[in-house]
Amino acid sequence: MTKNTKVNAAILIIGNEILSGRTQDTNTSTLATWLSSIGVKVNEVRVIPDDEKIIVNTLNVLRKANDYVFTTGGIGPTHDDITAQSVSKAFGLSYEVHKEAFKILEAYYKPGEFNKGRQKMVWMPKNASLILNPTSGAPGFSVENVFCLPGVPSILKSMLGSLKNRVVGGEPILSHTLSFKTVESEIAYSLKKVQNQNQDVEIGSYPFFHAGKLGVSIVLRSENQSKIDICSSQILEFIKEKKIEIVDR
Amino acid sequence: MTKNTKVNAAILIIGNEILSGRTQDTNTSTLATWLSSIGVKVNEVRVIPDDEKIIVNTLNVLRKANDYVFTTGGIGPTHDDITAQSVSKAFGLSYEVHKEAFKILEAYYKPGEFNKGRQKMVWMPKNASLILNPTSGAPGFSVENVFCLPGVPSILKSMLGSLKNRVVGGEPILSHTLSFKTVESEIAYSLKKVQNQNQDVEIGSYPFFHAGKLGVSIVLRSENQSKIDICSSQILEFIKEKKIEIVDR
Repeated sequence: MTKNTKVNAAILIIGNEILSGRTQDTNTSTLATWLSSIGVKVNEVRVIPDDEKIIVNTLNVLRKANDYVFTTGGIGPTHDDITAQSVSKAFGLSYEVHKEAFKILEAYYKPGEFNKGRQKMVWMPKNASLILNPTSGAPGFSVENVFCLPGVPSILKSMLGSLKNRVVGGEPILSHTLSFKTVESEIAYSLKKVQNQNQDVEIGSYPFFHAGKLGVSIVLRSENQSKIDICSSQILEFIKEKKIEIVDR
Repeated sequence: MTKNTKVNAAILIIGNEILSGRTQDTNTSTLATWLSSIGVKVNEVRVIPDDEKIIVNTLNVLRKANDYVFTTGGIGPTHDDITAQSVSKAFGLSYEVHKEAFKILEAYYKPGEFNKGRQKMVWMPKNASLILNPTSGAPGFSVENVFCLPGVPSILKSMLGSLKNRVVGGEPILSHTLSFKTVESEIAYSLKKVQNQNQDVEIGSYPFFHAGKLGVSIVLRSENQSKIDICSSQILEFIKEKKIEIVDR
């Protein structure tokens, strides 16, 4: 694969606690930021309940439509942790004890502590590749292009390092942010003209209200720095003409 | 519709800024919490880019599969705000100036300030119903079972009040949380037995690490309080037997 290929991914958040509003998901932002930095574009995110049929069906759609799929949640020891068995079903693989994972957890816990509950965490799709967990022992796993990570944000974060050579991105997606003391409607027309002239740069406009300040951030994203630079100077040109104050450039 | 009917919804977050990791979505949690409180169960959440074709296709899937769909984002004045035109396409309606919305914004702005950029915000699907915006004037809108809200969290929150009589839920989903000083693997087996005996109660298990404390929260959810109570007492029974410390019940 050359570095020029565009590489994309979907994120699948598994957990009733997100759908009920009880828990604020932060894993999407963590994964999306990391993926952007290694040149993988996130196409879509889905949040679904702890329901085997829904997990299997959704996974089978997403893994065929994307280069990579990252799941979070559902790999702990309790009855509502059904990601590993669902991934097995989605791939038509047997769900069984993973010998290497068993050894890791046997060594991780004190003698006698590696009980039935904990042993559930070594049940995985046959021949899954482990994703090591430096925080709490129990590994995640991958099957083909599907990577299964835990739901606890701090543990998930600590596991991304070990995926460095297993997730191969394309050209890194570069971005540049310009912030102005204005409102969107003042610059909407000029900004649209710049977007029309620069189709290869994704231009996003985001109002902000921060520390009593009202403004707009313009985010330019592309794999090509010089295209971002051209776009940026065209924007700064009309900003100057309109005598709008620059907050950050 | 009797109050006993189960009512469900999907949330559709529209915005490149969430997919790039730049912005942490909080609207899902706001909407999901509010929907739970009025008896609407969120079936799924999707995050998709500012892309007309994707918005149209996703919306057409979700609005047929759910009683309600709530979209956030893409209703501002800039070129990347394409939710209203996409919803028009999804329903096969013309995209046109909404007279009532025009009057509202004309009165909202000072004379001369209701410029072309701002006028974009009154273009909507034909005959859309407005969702009033007490914060910044520009209304959201609904077409049939699809409700379109802004992406800025504080503005979205301020608009939910006006939806009270337009979104009709079923029986409110009740929940009760029990917290224990333990780890999931200690209680996994007993908890599974309780879940098997209480199929009508959704039992979720969530480890927490908070202020130096390690524990597990068990969340019981059902439309029926007495079923939650039975479940709760069965859990407290095995917790007592295992001599596990109760943090909260």
